[in-house]
Amino acid sequence: MFSVTILGNNSAVPAYERFPTSQLVSLNGNQFLIDCGEGTQMQLMRYKIRYSRISHIFISHLHGDHYFGLIGLINSFGLLDRQQDLHVYGPSALKDIIELQLKVASTRLPFQLQIHAIESQGILVETEEIKVSFFPTDHRIECYGFLFQEKTLPRKLASQRNKPRTYAYCADTRYDERILQHIGEVDLLYHESTYLHDQHEKAELRYHATAKQAAEFAKKAGANRLLLGHFSSQYETIQGFEDEARKTFAASENALQGVTYLI
Amino acid sequence: MFSVTILGNNSAVPAYERFPTSQLVSLNGNQFLIDCGEGTQMQLMRYKIRYSRISHIFISHLHGDHYFGLIGLINSFGLLDRQQDLHVYGPSALKDIIELQLKVASTRLPFQLQIHAIESQGILVETEEIKVSFFPTDHRIECYGFLFQEKTLPRKLASQRNKPRTYAYCADTRYDERILQHIGEVDLLYHESTYLHDQHEKAELRYHATAKQAAEFAKKAGANRLLLGHFSSQYETIQGFEDEARKTFAASENALQGVTYLI
Repeated sequence: MFSVTILGNNSAVPAYERFPTSQLVSLNGNQFLIDCGEGTQMQLMRYKIRYSRISHIFISHLHGDHYFGLIGLINSFGLLDRQQDLHVYGPSALKDIIELQLKVASTRLPFQLQIHAIESQGILVETEEIKVSFFPTDHRIECYGFLFQEKTLPRKLASQRNKPRTYAYCADTRYDERILQHIGEVDLLYHESTYLHDQHEKAELRYHATAKQAAEFAKKAGANRLLLGHFSSQYETIQGFEDEARKTFAASENALQGVTYLI
Repeated sequence: MFSVTILGNNSAVPAYERFPTSQLVSLNGNQFLIDCGEGTQMQLMRYKIRYSRISHIFISHLHGDHYFGLIGLINSFGLLDRQQDLHVYGPSALKDIIELQLKVASTRLPFQLQIHAIESQGILVETEEIKVSFFPTDHRIECYGFLFQEKTLPRKLASQRNKPRTYAYCADTRYDERILQHIGEVDLLYHESTYLHDQHEKAELRYHATAKQAAEFAKKAGANRLLLGHFSSQYETIQGFEDEARKTFAASENALQGVTYLI
């Protein structure tokens, strides 16, 4: 099974029980966490996810709603006596932030924590089963998206299609066609839609995108399906995002917390 | 009204919907936050507390379950366009941790954030209405408790009693009678009880206390009432803490999330 589970779908300030960004990608028992906003560990518990299996964590950028929950998760892994290595990837200052917080508490982790700085673009993980690569997006600070590519197609799917499945997480970004080259004809595309399109000027100013822009991007990318997320706290309900996107790209849906989407 | 509202009552790893430590002390519209574990801002929202009024935040020590939620709360204050000054008090490294995280995101706060290092003991706040002081506790790393003293007794209470009301928060600590001198005959005492007494050796080893010890401490202090908290994640239910403490000190109760206790 190749899937993504939404742990948080809100932007900056948490609101209406919507948590800041975090997603769990699973492939045949391997687990990868994308971003880790505050409360991610509570969400993992709430949805009864056996998160000890997370081997790699990818942090798109250092706005707090994408990583403030990381130190708490690492700390809990330690208290729960995790043994296996944990690899964390993110912009270079992440290592300083995490290590400073471990140091002041005299924390000795029972596992190897390796924090890798990422820059520009490249491959992060490559096994027999999966390849994870990263690429830049257009945001106010250094920010990256991640592409998950299945390496071999399960036999039962091989008769139905001729290419391995892919999931692209485009992080926080303005509408930016330069991203297209990095993701190809993706099966499932996550594109942020912080605002509805009547606020496209605000979106542009704040380096975010609208639901309509996310849908246009999905269409241009030749994606099979689109997931919308990173909703602004100004919206009490989010149905409008899905409605707006579907006018441009029919296979659009809101990324809902606690829901697992097959890729 | 002089009260404390419990936002989180669990220790280290959050569990069973119990969040890590945070408490809100209110006196006539003034609000003070004690500790700020991960998810504190979500708890403030869940309980519909108008938290913009928080003027001072006191961090007892730099174990993550007492401060990992602070950067998120500060960040949200900024996004919500807070204007009034915010004073944060805690061990000296706290300033570095917060400032580093603000810096990497190029965050410009619209309010004055003043982070004060505390050391040893002394007075933190003194107005016409309240005095807040701090004192050392016996924990694995530098750790402080806080004493809240009402300065003048409301007229309607003056006929019933002859001294202003007090609340002592004894943070994380072993059983330690040296703390008694700092708190006096306190009205409401919060004392941690991470474990039940059958695990008193583990408690001692980890610089924590048991429910029985918390009750003994309350008795020695001549406290009116005792609140128990900082429950270990090994306990799925917490009724046992209250039961154990009441055998030694009848006016004991568990600190429950979302509940406001009058002082």
